[in-house]
Amino acid sequence: MNIALAQCNFTVGDIAGNAAKLLSFARQAKAEGAEIVVFSELALTGYYPMDLLDEPWFVARQEAALNEVATASAAIGVTLVFGAATASTKGYGKPRYNSLVVAENGRIAAVYHKQLLPTYNIFDEARHFEPGSESLVWALNGVKIGFLICEDGWNEDGAQYQANPWEGVRGADLVIAINASPSDIGKPKRREQLFTRLAAKYALPLVYVNQVGANDSIVYDGHSFACNSDGTVRARMAGFAEDLRSVQFDLPSRSFAPALAAPFDDTREAFMFAQLTLGIRDYVAKTGMKTVVVGSSGGIDSALVLALAALAIGPENVTAITMPGPYSSPGSVLDSRALCENFAIELLEWPIGGGFDWALGAFEAAVGEAPSKLTRENLQARLRGLALMAYSNHRGALVLSTGNKSEMSVGYATLYGDMNGGLNPLGDLYKTEVYALAQWINRSFPATPIPAAILEKAPSAELAPGQKDEDSLPPYPVLDEILKYQIEGERLPHEEYQQARHFVSDLLANGQEALVKRVWQMVAKSEFKRRQAPPIIRVRARAFGSGRQMPVAAKY
Amino acid sequence: MNIALAQCNFTVGDIAGNAAKLLSFARQAKAEGAEIVVFSELALTGYYPMDLLDEPWFVARQEAALNEVATASAAIGVTLVFGAATASTKGYGKPRYNSLVVAENGRIAAVYHKQLLPTYNIFDEARHFEPGSESLVWALNGVKIGFLICEDGWNEDGAQYQANPWEGVRGADLVIAINASPSDIGKPKRREQLFTRLAAKYALPLVYVNQVGANDSIVYDGHSFACNSDGTVRARMAGFAEDLRSVQFDLPSRSFAPALAAPFDDTREAFMFAQLTLGIRDYVAKTGMKTVVVGSSGGIDSALVLALAALAIGPENVTAITMPGPYSSPGSVLDSRALCENFAIELLEWPIGGGFDWALGAFEAAVGEAPSKLTRENLQARLRGLALMAYSNHRGALVLSTGNKSEMSVGYATLYGDMNGGLNPLGDLYKTEVYALAQWINRSFPATPIPAAILEKAPSAELAPGQKDEDSLPPYPVLDEILKYQIEGERLPHEEYQQARHFVSDLLANGQEALVKRVWQMVAKSEFKRRQAPPIIRVRARAFGSGRQMPVAAKY
Repeated sequence: MNIALAQCNFTVGDIAGNAAKLLSFARQAKAEGAEIVVFSELALTGYYPMDLLDEPWFVARQEAALNEVATASAAIGVTLVFGAATASTKGYGKPRYNSLVVAENGRIAAVYHKQLLPTYNIFDEARHFEPGSESLVWALNGVKIGFLICEDGWNEDGAQYQANPWEGVRGADLVIAINASPSDIGKPKRREQLFTRLAAKYALPLVYVNQVGANDSIVYDGHSFACNSDGTVRARMAGFAEDLRSVQFDLPSRSFAPALAAPFDDTREAFMFAQLTLGIRDYVAKTGMKTVVVGSSGGIDSALVLALAALAIGPENVTAITMPGPYSSPGSVLDSRALCENFAIELLEWPIGGGFDWALGAFEAAVGEAPSKLTRENLQARLRGLALMAYSNHRGALVLSTGNKSEMSVGYATLYGDMNGGLNPLGDLYKTEVYALAQWINRSFPATPIPAAILEKAPSAELAPGQKDEDSLPPYPVLDEILKYQIEGERLPHEEYQQARHFVSDLLANGQEALVKRVWQMVAKSEFKRRQAPPIIRVRARAFGSGRQMPVAAKY
Repeated sequence: MNIALAQCNFTVGDIAGNAAKLLSFARQAKAEGAEIVVFSELALTGYYPMDLLDEPWFVARQEAALNEVATASAAIGVTLVFGAATASTKGYGKPRYNSLVVAENGRIAAVYHKQLLPTYNIFDEARHFEPGSESLVWALNGVKIGFLICEDGWNEDGAQYQANPWEGVRGADLVIAINASPSDIGKPKRREQLFTRLAAKYALPLVYVNQVGANDSIVYDGHSFACNSDGTVRARMAGFAEDLRSVQFDLPSRSFAPALAAPFDDTREAFMFAQLTLGIRDYVAKTGMKTVVVGSSGGIDSALVLALAALAIGPENVTAITMPGPYSSPGSVLDSRALCENFAIELLEWPIGGGFDWALGAFEAAVGEAPSKLTRENLQARLRGLALMAYSNHRGALVLSTGNKSEMSVGYATLYGDMNGGLNPLGDLYKTEVYALAQWINRSFPATPIPAAILEKAPSAELAPGQKDEDSLPPYPVLDEILKYQIEGERLPHEEYQQARHFVSDLLANGQEALVKRVWQMVAKSEFKRRQAPPIIRVRARAFGSGRQMPVAAKY
């Protein structure tokens, strides 16, 4: 049996476009000999459509597309397996299931309803869906196929849910799992290891198809695969790109013929690069934009954002604006120029001194005294934010903000100033990781180096004379370990967690309790800023945004 | 049996403060003769603590407070009934229940776990809690008491959940329900009607205790009550304020002695006023602020926000800033002055012309051409936003933004400009409701009128010569009906829904399909602005924020 894995990049909400893409992939798979073609979870709506699922017109539109695809299956002459929302007939609970649909010969041949609905971290499926309660094993050309939908396969140790849908597909010849499994550090390999382990445990050959592409903050990495009943991977599809490839399943031996297996990214930085460039590219495209603009301070964060943007969507679609102010070092402009020359990025220069002078005078005239130090600092950041937004309005360019996770954690960022933007690419990278990724880019793309001066200077907001980040914050290697422990804790990869935990234990043992508490209070007190921050591309298991939902008007 | 209803305003996360308040109310109830004192749902953590529930230190802190309260029950000499998170022993699923705890004689005497977990609209309990599966009827001094926690009582027609916890307390002498039931238009009365109807259906006397106070966007109105087994209300507590009152329950007759019954607000505007002033007051207090600042344009929105703020926290804690620009009418400053005089609000004047001139020149120097019309308009709004934030930074005053629901729906607001603020009080009022509430204030508080000139002028952003809102938008009475239909639909109160539906049907029948579509596209395209908006005080059943979660990088 020839099975095609269709790893598509769907756009959330674009039902007509997604259905057209699905049919186009199906036709190509048929042309290449496929008998069955497998797509990802909620393929017609894209994952995750959020409260669009509650809109009657949206549900009706998906229903129409579902019927259209089923009808088209006859002419194409393949069996299609894909995810769609379908109506519940339970008579209570949520009105719809998150389902897997088998379409062939012009009709819907079988439907399976997802049993385990993830409702944690970035997932919120219990908000919209009713869980299914029955497994499905369905025969195609003599092959008994069992089905799973994403979370169904993740209850390995029985701790998350009472049911274990793997049990329900025992006895099948083959399992097909459709998924929308987002990626974070280590996830692609960890996911495959989990599923191959379980395939081996239940002695079931497995076809695993994942969504690819970015939707808002969340990036899906693809890496669809097929493995034998002993867990041996026989095919793996591309990471971070659409892909369509077939595997040949032999029923007597219940095994797949070997096929190409695309590699995983070999380093953490390679992963981050792939995650962030896809995140930027898709956010720009799916919001209907073409170009981006970034405030270039001459510092490492904006340099990295510019580099990522240029490598993601081409330097011709990227504009930098250097906005020197009264406390900017000469390097602010000079290093921005060197960077933009290296990357062939257009650089505009918009000094803010005149605006700052106006604001200082106007403030004193209105309020009757000179503005405080904090006020003066934020004024400069907000004048820069205003300049970026003016360019954005004028040219239709998306502003990328440049705050990293260390800054976003402790609120070392100006709301309506440097936080301005439609998307924040670095908000899930600690400052120490920003350096590591910049250095990786310099090694990997030697033709477009980030200037050494930018990598070497001491971090500074340059909003006051001689200011350095370390005047207000602990050194980043210290801060980052505390933050990892406080914000992510046990959700960190095991080794990172052990390291952060020991680091904080040592601090506490060495009389640094006040420092640890101060960091936590900075995190708590800046929740109001994060609530208004642009979407952050998720890179780690616990990212700001839907993954960490905290109250603002609270005391803790 | 003397039962005290303790309607408290808890602060989310402030476990020590909440426990102290709980014990203080309990002591007072005991002094007034109570045998049993009933608090609201999740009393120790406040409702809703969000992902604080996932923090080990937070859970441990609540556990300690729970034991402290249980211990204190001996010395106080009453039975305490209150909500707390407790550990699940199921071995799978979420680690905690949303529980009701009975504490007396220094120990925890009984625990009941909430069975129905709301996971829709603003509710997200399945994210944190495991549902209970057993009802509890527990005897105190010969009275068999059944328990419900909030959503447990709302499955009236069986459409929402499979279980109906009312069935599980059949046979009790009395039911105690602890709740954190938020208020929106019509909700206080509707809630009481539902519960009294069900009390009568199951022939059960009922004590219903609700939380009061605002947490972030959500306001809880209190209105706790007690009713007899025929549904007759025998006591009702204050709306929108803390209250502590006892009811006398007679076992032989299974009825309450009559007590004071506080009235409901008699009009929609009175409700909005109560909701918004409590929302403002609590947000300011619970974020640790004291004062607010509002940009005063001379228009109706900022006038209403200033009036609400002055009436909520006192005019001495409110500052207005008028920021005339090149296209401001004389009324912008003059009407602001009249308003602030009427309300005894400090008014500062910060003209933005100088900043605007600088920005125009700097833009042209940087970009090489003059800014577009949209860019020029947004520049003015952002200079004003910058001025407000400068004052906020300098004085520690919370900025209140002034966008109404009509504007927030269609994106008729400048991100990082007039949208700036820590809280948006009007974001759930349509423009037509803004007028109605302003007029209600003038009738209800004749000593502090909003000037007639402000009520009478045509709405204008005054960002371009002669500009009126109706140049860009349909007239508000038309726009608001379309928006009600598109955004809230069947979640509207029935009559409002019928009206909006007919209004839109008539538009479509009269060839206005393009208008209806244009409004919807404006709503969809401005999702990115709402994602970064400050919290909006929720007033209607479907408010922007957690109540309406839509994707940004999407096509629909």
